[in-house]
Amino acid sequence: MEGSEHKNPVGIIGSGSFGMAIANLLAENVDVLLYARREEVRLAIEKREGRYSVLSPRIQAVSDLQLVAQKCQLIFPIVPSQAFRSMMKQLSPYLNPTHFLIHGTKGLDLQDLPQGQSLHPEHIKTMSQVIEEESIVCRIGCLSGPNLSKEIMEGQPAATLIASPFTEVIKAGQAVLKSNRFQVYGDHDIIGAELAGALKNIIALAAGILGGKGLGKNLWALLVTRGLSEMIHIGKAVGADVKPFLGVAGIGDLVATASSENSRNYKAGYRLGKGETLDDIMETSTDVIEGVKTLETIRALGAHLGITTPIVEIVYRVFFKKMPVDNAIQFLITYPYAVDVDFLP
Amino acid sequence: MEGSEHKNPVGIIGSGSFGMAIANLLAENVDVLLYARREEVRLAIEKREGRYSVLSPRIQAVSDLQLVAQKCQLIFPIVPSQAFRSMMKQLSPYLNPTHFLIHGTKGLDLQDLPQGQSLHPEHIKTMSQVIEEESIVCRIGCLSGPNLSKEIMEGQPAATLIASPFTEVIKAGQAVLKSNRFQVYGDHDIIGAELAGALKNIIALAAGILGGKGLGKNLWALLVTRGLSEMIHIGKAVGADVKPFLGVAGIGDLVATASSENSRNYKAGYRLGKGETLDDIMETSTDVIEGVKTLETIRALGAHLGITTPIVEIVYRVFFKKMPVDNAIQFLITYPYAVDVDFLP
Repeated sequence: MEGSEHKNPVGIIGSGSFGMAIANLLAENVDVLLYARREEVRLAIEKREGRYSVLSPRIQAVSDLQLVAQKCQLIFPIVPSQAFRSMMKQLSPYLNPTHFLIHGTKGLDLQDLPQGQSLHPEHIKTMSQVIEEESIVCRIGCLSGPNLSKEIMEGQPAATLIASPFTEVIKAGQAVLKSNRFQVYGDHDIIGAELAGALKNIIALAAGILGGKGLGKNLWALLVTRGLSEMIHIGKAVGADVKPFLGVAGIGDLVATASSENSRNYKAGYRLGKGETLDDIMETSTDVIEGVKTLETIRALGAHLGITTPIVEIVYRVFFKKMPVDNAIQFLITYPYAVDVDFLP
Repeated sequence: MEGSEHKNPVGIIGSGSFGMAIANLLAENVDVLLYARREEVRLAIEKREGRYSVLSPRIQAVSDLQLVAQKCQLIFPIVPSQAFRSMMKQLSPYLNPTHFLIHGTKGLDLQDLPQGQSLHPEHIKTMSQVIEEESIVCRIGCLSGPNLSKEIMEGQPAATLIASPFTEVIKAGQAVLKSNRFQVYGDHDIIGAELAGALKNIIALAAGILGGKGLGKNLWALLVTRGLSEMIHIGKAVGADVKPFLGVAGIGDLVATASSENSRNYKAGYRLGKGETLDDIMETSTDVIEGVKTLETIRALGAHLGITTPIVEIVYRVFFKKMPVDNAIQFLITYPYAVDVDFLP
């Protein structure tokens, strides 16, 4: 992936808002193939209709996965977590061991359980694990950081992290993504970065609720602090390291997502805080709200592992059991946390 | 400090906005003596004029330090850091070893250096060290957390940390401050909590600049993440532990202060981002902006200790050397941080 090979086009699978944002960043350095599953979307991108009008001329739309795999050695899969495994099953036949896959999906894969079987941690996979299971590729990485798509599309500066066990994957991603408005850090703990990215959406849901209730920064900051601590405990329980949670993929992504109305998870919480029901929100939201699914998954996982996750629990009750928000806040404020910071030795 | 002794009035020294907020919280549980240095302020408080109209009837204003020391076993000094040592010199003659002092000042004490002498870490003291040096009291603690005064005065829920080497100090503070809208955690690392509270003001200045420039959450989140890392490095260089920086007194206080226009440090940065000069801001600000003094002090300390503090450095240049903000942002985005999280082993 060094030198002239960067002139290869880079592939993106998924034409949602984050896929588009990454496509535009890549297009500052390389040609880009942007895969859209549906032919009418490919056409709309080609004609630069509507929301696609902001895409760089260096981006070409395709609706053929085989073509993406043939032309691109480096591919960024960025599709909702619930569609990720089926996308990988379709892409996999065209992949070979020389491919590099750096995904940008912040959610978890939950396999369908046989009737009556309870959830085990092995049923929950990060996207890199799905790539491993579904393909022959082993050069896998993930993008994770405070990367609200709208701000990137506006040309605002930002930074991200590429996590991968392979330094060559980090370097390949940096070579095509880095610019004077986009910084790319590297780290080797991919599972930690993926978990941080997925778990923070639960805290963003909760932060949105506080925003919808018109509450201020003191309580929000408490939620962020306690939420991060809970994210770390969950991560540790499934074998992740603390570090990724304390860098751009952890704190960074968390505070951006949990404070911005441009985050779809925050927005979902906000609407709930304003009095809408979960059904209202799910029916009328045009975007996939990753956090809601992650919330259900992690609550079940926490129960199985026997770890204490008070914030996950109350957010779950507010979203799924109509627990009044004021009761939830009272719970958070009076919860008898014994120690301020208990995730470090 | 157990049982009936809580009926003693509790003292507060300093009638600024945070002193008033803490006074109102205390008044939910105990009688409060609120010390104001100037007699006209004491009178205004007594008459509940203007900004003092919101104070609880259980708060009595006094302008006699001796009276505070005589009546109150537990005292909260909450005055600007630059006035702290002289206040302690005046209070000290009336204190005895049975007093408990829990301060709420988020700044550092810098002793006047003899002409030509360069700064050493020993010239910089936290407020608890000033209390130790200036009085016979050893039961010392500090308040630190996401506690924007305006929100507390509005009755919004919040949480704080009391840090003290002495569990009895933590318990005494909790007994009088805790309520169903105010949670009080405890921790034993007082220097770490004090440093976190002081250092975060520098990041709040920087965050305000970004806000004034109209920039979004991605860059702000990067600043918060990198800023926290830099705070921890400075703390470690002077012997503090990492933990307090990762709890309510660290991340919690940081994200609240660095995101709220109710924070005076954020506001100062915001005005600078809008194009005002430091002189304009200092001349017209009615509040003490702790972060500006802390910025100068920490920059000098960093140079002495030989630690790398890129954010402190660029914020200093923007505030004191008229470095254009766009250059500062470019610097932050392209700064070659080698590792994402380097403050844990």
